[in-house]
Amino acid sequence: MQYKYPGCLITLEGGEGAGKSTQIAFLRDWLAARGITVICTREPGGSPGAEEIRSLLNYGELDKWDEITEAILINAARRDHVIRKIRPALIRGDWVVCDRFCDSTLVYQGAGSGIPIGVLRTLIDIAVEGIQPDLTLILYIDPVVALKRIESRESKKTRFERRDNAFHFRVANGFFDLAMAEPERCTLIDATKSPKKVAMEISSVVLNRLLIS
Amino acid sequence: MQYKYPGCLITLEGGEGAGKSTQIAFLRDWLAARGITVICTREPGGSPGAEEIRSLLNYGELDKWDEITEAILINAARRDHVIRKIRPALIRGDWVVCDRFCDSTLVYQGAGSGIPIGVLRTLIDIAVEGIQPDLTLILYIDPVVALKRIESRESKKTRFERRDNAFHFRVANGFFDLAMAEPERCTLIDATKSPKKVAMEISSVVLNRLLIS
Repeated sequence: MQYKYPGCLITLEGGEGAGKSTQIAFLRDWLAARGITVICTREPGGSPGAEEIRSLLNYGELDKWDEITEAILINAARRDHVIRKIRPALIRGDWVVCDRFCDSTLVYQGAGSGIPIGVLRTLIDIAVEGIQPDLTLILYIDPVVALKRIESRESKKTRFERRDNAFHFRVANGFFDLAMAEPERCTLIDATKSPKKVAMEISSVVLNRLLIS
Repeated sequence: MQYKYPGCLITLEGGEGAGKSTQIAFLRDWLAARGITVICTREPGGSPGAEEIRSLLNYGELDKWDEITEAILINAARRDHVIRKIRPALIRGDWVVCDRFCDSTLVYQGAGSGIPIGVLRTLIDIAVEGIQPDLTLILYIDPVVALKRIESRESKKTRFERRDNAFHFRVANGFFDLAMAEPERCTLIDATKSPKKVAMEISSVVLNRLLIS
């Protein structure tokens, strides 16, 4: 579906605790059942080099990196991921389902941390070499509910999950604004519904937007 | 000497094997003997976060990172180094002597690896927040001689040192061109002379350009 490549890139976006991992597993199985070769991946990370950068980003003190250093590192990881994994898959004609992509940078580092969008878009342009999602599913959930879901998890929280509530509210608003600003590419999905209902809505969107168009 | 800050930033540049480390030690002692508080540091690295990024950059396979990912990572390290170490030192009024800075990016990733200078300058601008060297000493040495010096070292070679000879020739030419292009800031030093003669030339340049101006 990409202008340049035979494959198709679907990204899932949303704040912490919106259920992206669960939905990616559903979507992978749903696409595979239709005979589509699916590569599931994630950001930051997704390739060996990018995963090394991810571990620099996710652990350590909250102030380990200033916001702009963080944005630069995220885009170094993104470039490695794009050129080593995503682009080769799209060239082969595979479908790529990616847990977070450029929109997370615009929302977390832009709306959340206040970095000028121009700086972020410059870094993203250097990183992605023209690759854009064919469809972005934004799993939207009230941040109060999402933060409760995170609290109930047993795994160690990342630096992003440990940010204060105001940050998570700015992120939630940022994703909402993004869905409104780019309706051709982005679909807002109500992630407070049951996982099964969310999965049905996602498969319906994918069917209508990418398979029978 | 900085327009914005009371401190002074001197950078040493040059290809591998030009003797930068030796000269930095000489210069540190020479400045300290004049009552100047000197911070010696290096790129990539120089701050705890940047040193973590340095270890991602310097070791591993030659093709571990593509050239642009490498340039992005170098500038993430640079930003951390600038805001955590160099800028605070310049604000205190200390002098900073740095082993490599932005010019190495322009020469290694630009002249050496062929990344467009515009991309590199964009990344550098995001990283340095307006900090510029007051003086850049370019230790110039014929690359054939330099490569022999590297060969005779016992330490494990970095990814940069393992690049082919053509790369090191492009780097040497890049440093030469830089010195010609920015004569107010840059001084070309003949690094084939004895370390003591090179040190005398450097101290003479620092005296004339920064101390009695």
